[in-house]
Amino acid sequence: MKIGICAPSTPFSRADAVRVTALAEQEYPQVRLVWHEQCFAEYGHFAGCDADRLAAFTALANDDSVDAIWFVRGGYGACRIAEDAMLRLGDTARDKIYMGYSDAGNILGALYRAGIGFPVHGPMPADIRRDGGAAAVRRALGWMVQADRASLDPVMDEGVRYAAFNLMTLSMMVGTPIMPDLSGHVVMVEEVSEHLYAFDRAMFHVLTALSDAGLAGIMLGRVGDVPENDRPFGEEVEDIARRWCSRTGIAYLGRAGIGHDADNRVVPFGLATVPRGQ
Amino acid sequence: MKIGICAPSTPFSRADAVRVTALAEQEYPQVRLVWHEQCFAEYGHFAGCDADRLAAFTALANDDSVDAIWFVRGGYGACRIAEDAMLRLGDTARDKIYMGYSDAGNILGALYRAGIGFPVHGPMPADIRRDGGAAAVRRALGWMVQADRASLDPVMDEGVRYAAFNLMTLSMMVGTPIMPDLSGHVVMVEEVSEHLYAFDRAMFHVLTALSDAGLAGIMLGRVGDVPENDRPFGEEVEDIARRWCSRTGIAYLGRAGIGHDADNRVVPFGLATVPRGQ
Repeated sequence: MKIGICAPSTPFSRADAVRVTALAEQEYPQVRLVWHEQCFAEYGHFAGCDADRLAAFTALANDDSVDAIWFVRGGYGACRIAEDAMLRLGDTARDKIYMGYSDAGNILGALYRAGIGFPVHGPMPADIRRDGGAAAVRRALGWMVQADRASLDPVMDEGVRYAAFNLMTLSMMVGTPIMPDLSGHVVMVEEVSEHLYAFDRAMFHVLTALSDAGLAGIMLGRVGDVPENDRPFGEEVEDIARRWCSRTGIAYLGRAGIGHDADNRVVPFGLATVPRGQ
Repeated sequence: MKIGICAPSTPFSRADAVRVTALAEQEYPQVRLVWHEQCFAEYGHFAGCDADRLAAFTALANDDSVDAIWFVRGGYGACRIAEDAMLRLGDTARDKIYMGYSDAGNILGALYRAGIGFPVHGPMPADIRRDGGAAAVRRALGWMVQADRASLDPVMDEGVRYAAFNLMTLSMMVGTPIMPDLSGHVVMVEEVSEHLYAFDRAMFHVLTALSDAGLAGIMLGRVGDVPENDRPFGEEVEDIARRWCSRTGIAYLGRAGIGHDADNRVVPFGLATVPRGQ
């Protein structure tokens, strides 16, 4: 099995790539990780200019010999190439798993809207840098390589459609051509490094905009690294989620096991389907 | 003339209110500023709970003796009451000016969508705290009291429809029932305290979502207090605006004189119409 790795957002380090490769070689000898050189490119904020990031992703996605695409890390930049990328994906892109989270949600969402492949929210190579990050990388590989259901969020039920996003990433997709149809889905959201007022504002935005979108419900992932504000917000994150669900008539379905942390679980979009050949 | 002041977002201080009142009494003796007690209320992050902020705004807007509503300051919270407020405004609310910016843009946008009154982007009482803030307060009063065209952004042309927003505030309105129809309008956007990647992301969002909305164009206000990022973005704010305009087919029309600063200009929504009786 061959997993192609590219960087739709920000660059990765070669040293960390070596660590991830070592882990994969030791624990999943049947897998070969193919690091696109673009993972290590630098262009201002980005892992290469838009054209280069787009080209790397589409080259791997359209490569017959590659079975899955693993986005190396988040940051920012995927929204700048996601729509164009969909226009360049051929038939061979349709059988692949695409895994990532955070900013990579832009591409997962665009793929899901376009009905291309198997988009999966899950850990990325960059998680190797976290405390306990090896477990996160294992969890990602476990799903991609052998559809190990232990990688999934244990809150997930059989026969239910899910999607999982970073809340701010999803907010910035609303109303754009990369926003997928989430009707009938349980939508999990997580957030990191945002003030509680900004979390509240993004919940207003996403839930109000999706109030008539037929969601099956909202599940709240972890909301991490909340900065201190000059005044306390006066409400906790789950209260915020419950309130916006109540106001927008969307079912609040409890907590989910996703977040910007080493415990981030795998959530395939739609039903937890396993691609042919896996 | 009576100007009613309320706080749809965060609370104000009585000491600063005294300074604004003193300036108004000295320079605009024909004006009486009516500070709703709710301006000074505290409820977690907010100037009172949602119901209290809503009640204060609608009481002033529906008060026959009040000629204009001045939002005291931004922060966060107006999106939580804007939609409900529109349902409670009667006929007397229709002749008034409503002035503010930043988070108050949620109410300006909702009013403009509903066709109620004269929403105006302009300085707020809280600007008194800035260096040079007295000039900002004068600029606001000059427009509200005597339609002083010196208060307007000098880039504005006669016969052109404008709207002006904080970019992130506008982004969070996209797809919600408080988002106004901006077709045929020159839309001015400004930003403050956001990383350049977040500015770029919000420009992606707003311009992509509005690419088919028939905007007359975009003008870029000031983008202030940009935090340092761990890596430089590699592009300046005007390059970012030009690029997204080019990609979305929206005309880029240059710089505007709005921003989170003492030089923030007055921009009435639509044509720079003066209400009856002013």
